[in-house]
Amino acid sequence: MTKEHAKENEEVVLDHGTGARLSRELVERIAATLGDTYIGAMEDSAILEVPTGRIAVTTDSFVVTPLFFGNGDIGKVAVCGTVNDLAVSGARPLYLTLGLIIEAGFPIPLLVRALESARDAAKEAGVKIVAGDTKVVGKGEADRLFMNTAGVGVFERPPLVSRAVRPGHKIIVSGYLGNHSIHLLSVREGLGFEKRVQSDCAPLNGLIDAVLKGVPQGAVAAIRDVTRGGLCAVLHEFARASGAELSFARAALPVLPEAVMAADMLGINLIHLANEGCLCLFVEADKAGDVLGILRAHPYGRNAAVIGEVKAATEPVVSMTEPDGTQTLLEELYGAELPRLC
Amino acid sequence: MTKEHAKENEEVVLDHGTGARLSRELVERIAATLGDTYIGAMEDSAILEVPTGRIAVTTDSFVVTPLFFGNGDIGKVAVCGTVNDLAVSGARPLYLTLGLIIEAGFPIPLLVRALESARDAAKEAGVKIVAGDTKVVGKGEADRLFMNTAGVGVFERPPLVSRAVRPGHKIIVSGYLGNHSIHLLSVREGLGFEKRVQSDCAPLNGLIDAVLKGVPQGAVAAIRDVTRGGLCAVLHEFARASGAELSFARAALPVLPEAVMAADMLGINLIHLANEGCLCLFVEADKAGDVLGILRAHPYGRNAAVIGEVKAATEPVVSMTEPDGTQTLLEELYGAELPRLC
Repeated sequence: MTKEHAKENEEVVLDHGTGARLSRELVERIAATLGDTYIGAMEDSAILEVPTGRIAVTTDSFVVTPLFFGNGDIGKVAVCGTVNDLAVSGARPLYLTLGLIIEAGFPIPLLVRALESARDAAKEAGVKIVAGDTKVVGKGEADRLFMNTAGVGVFERPPLVSRAVRPGHKIIVSGYLGNHSIHLLSVREGLGFEKRVQSDCAPLNGLIDAVLKGVPQGAVAAIRDVTRGGLCAVLHEFARASGAELSFARAALPVLPEAVMAADMLGINLIHLANEGCLCLFVEADKAGDVLGILRAHPYGRNAAVIGEVKAATEPVVSMTEPDGTQTLLEELYGAELPRLC
Repeated sequence: MTKEHAKENEEVVLDHGTGARLSRELVERIAATLGDTYIGAMEDSAILEVPTGRIAVTTDSFVVTPLFFGNGDIGKVAVCGTVNDLAVSGARPLYLTLGLIIEAGFPIPLLVRALESARDAAKEAGVKIVAGDTKVVGKGEADRLFMNTAGVGVFERPPLVSRAVRPGHKIIVSGYLGNHSIHLLSVREGLGFEKRVQSDCAPLNGLIDAVLKGVPQGAVAAIRDVTRGGLCAVLHEFARASGAELSFARAALPVLPEAVMAADMLGINLIHLANEGCLCLFVEADKAGDVLGILRAHPYGRNAAVIGEVKAATEPVVSMTEPDGTQTLLEELYGAELPRLC
């Protein structure tokens, strides 16, 4: 893309996706926008050094709407989502790939803005974007912009796996539940909560590294980032993996009062909503206090709380205790009718 | 997804993308369809062994239309495209990730069919699918089904890079030019050529391995798969990388007569069209015969031909010699108006 093409009203056109000169110029512009965060060599594959013999690999596609929201956008979400998926497995995120599917007519300045966010998030997380791909589809064949990121990390400590979770482990949540979803729903529906409830979207590899460095190896059994399906889906996943009862207290959940109000208005429960910067950790009981302290000392873990524990059970269940002591078994939601939050 | 959900008229719905039970059931069905080709552990990241300290990483999104064509479909293209991108860099492809973006209303039996093709192609290529992601968007928000694959390979020999190409190298093409595009355009436009001109979509890692094993190290300087932009885009890329003249003879190009007829009808040139199973190789002159022999002995290289050579020049150009000896300098195409062929 020459300077003439970078004008404010310039749009992505079908020819940008054909592999010819215009394609190449768009790719060069994308690489320039990503700056030194991008280390692809314009070959068909990036050639990378991995210092360990064991790697973590993950992928995620992002179809967020709106593309740009109060304190983030699809570019930030696409990088943080994959960085976090690597980090919760105990890996150090190193490399990301970035695949773009762009609807013809999408404004190039908005594409640049999303890429700048991706670049900034990658910088914060300390990862490099090593390979990319750009496809253009016709008007009406995609909803503006979809991103896919795949990630490669290395294991400098043993991997964290869900089967390590056992009765006796404490369950810790690292931040307010549902803020990302409430923020996006508020922007989408014009509810007016979006200023008071911000998305929590953030790269959490630094937070996770601080926790894992701060306690003896094995004290943290497993970590999961709370995304689609919310805390409830995470707890059901770990209940199935451990065959245990995952029990938490409703009053212990870290929630922002404005988010509760918004969720009540929408008739939904925060435990089913997606975050993009919130962890659920399973920790040895005698180290739970240490982990909580480390989380709370970090900007992304200030509102962390111990919410419950893993109990021996004859079948996997998720249970919630009310302030009056009554207990409810939580079903796994069948569907949620809340698509495109991440 | 329970058996009741696998009925012929079952469709993907928005709830399949919400992270709740329906999502999980769809993901489990996807994993079951991929069979032992899928080695993801249903954690957020796959944990993988890499036998070398140097890896190749690449990504590609696929927006092919039609999704299903005469002798292939988006699932096959998505696996072969990424396998080939890894293999042309000299890497052995090991692991793929698979990201799906599905339009609500897409028939589940067609999704299964595309995944079966992806599985079969992965089996043939000897790669495992290690992580996946599924997003569902509303009707009209995507054109049925998009796939993204990212790939990880290992280097058991030195990487092949475009800057190794030098004057004196012979240029070899491994098969008929443009067949994949002509096949898809014929299906799209109802031209009637699709039976006689089949897509060449295939995993080429076996073919590349045979070539690299069969000649001394360094004899093959670089390989590129001829995809978007066609042979002309590949030659321009290598002209820029080497600063040399890339010269070929029109009469030497391997082309299928029916593909030439179809291209003439469409007013396009086969050198600009995408393949999905065709290589362009840059080879030391005294080993070109050996490489050609190895290619022609392989089912995917039967129609290989030496088409030209790299010549010293003052600026990078691509030149074509006609049968009467006249020479044309080929411009890089600006755009091609032929989107969504891969």
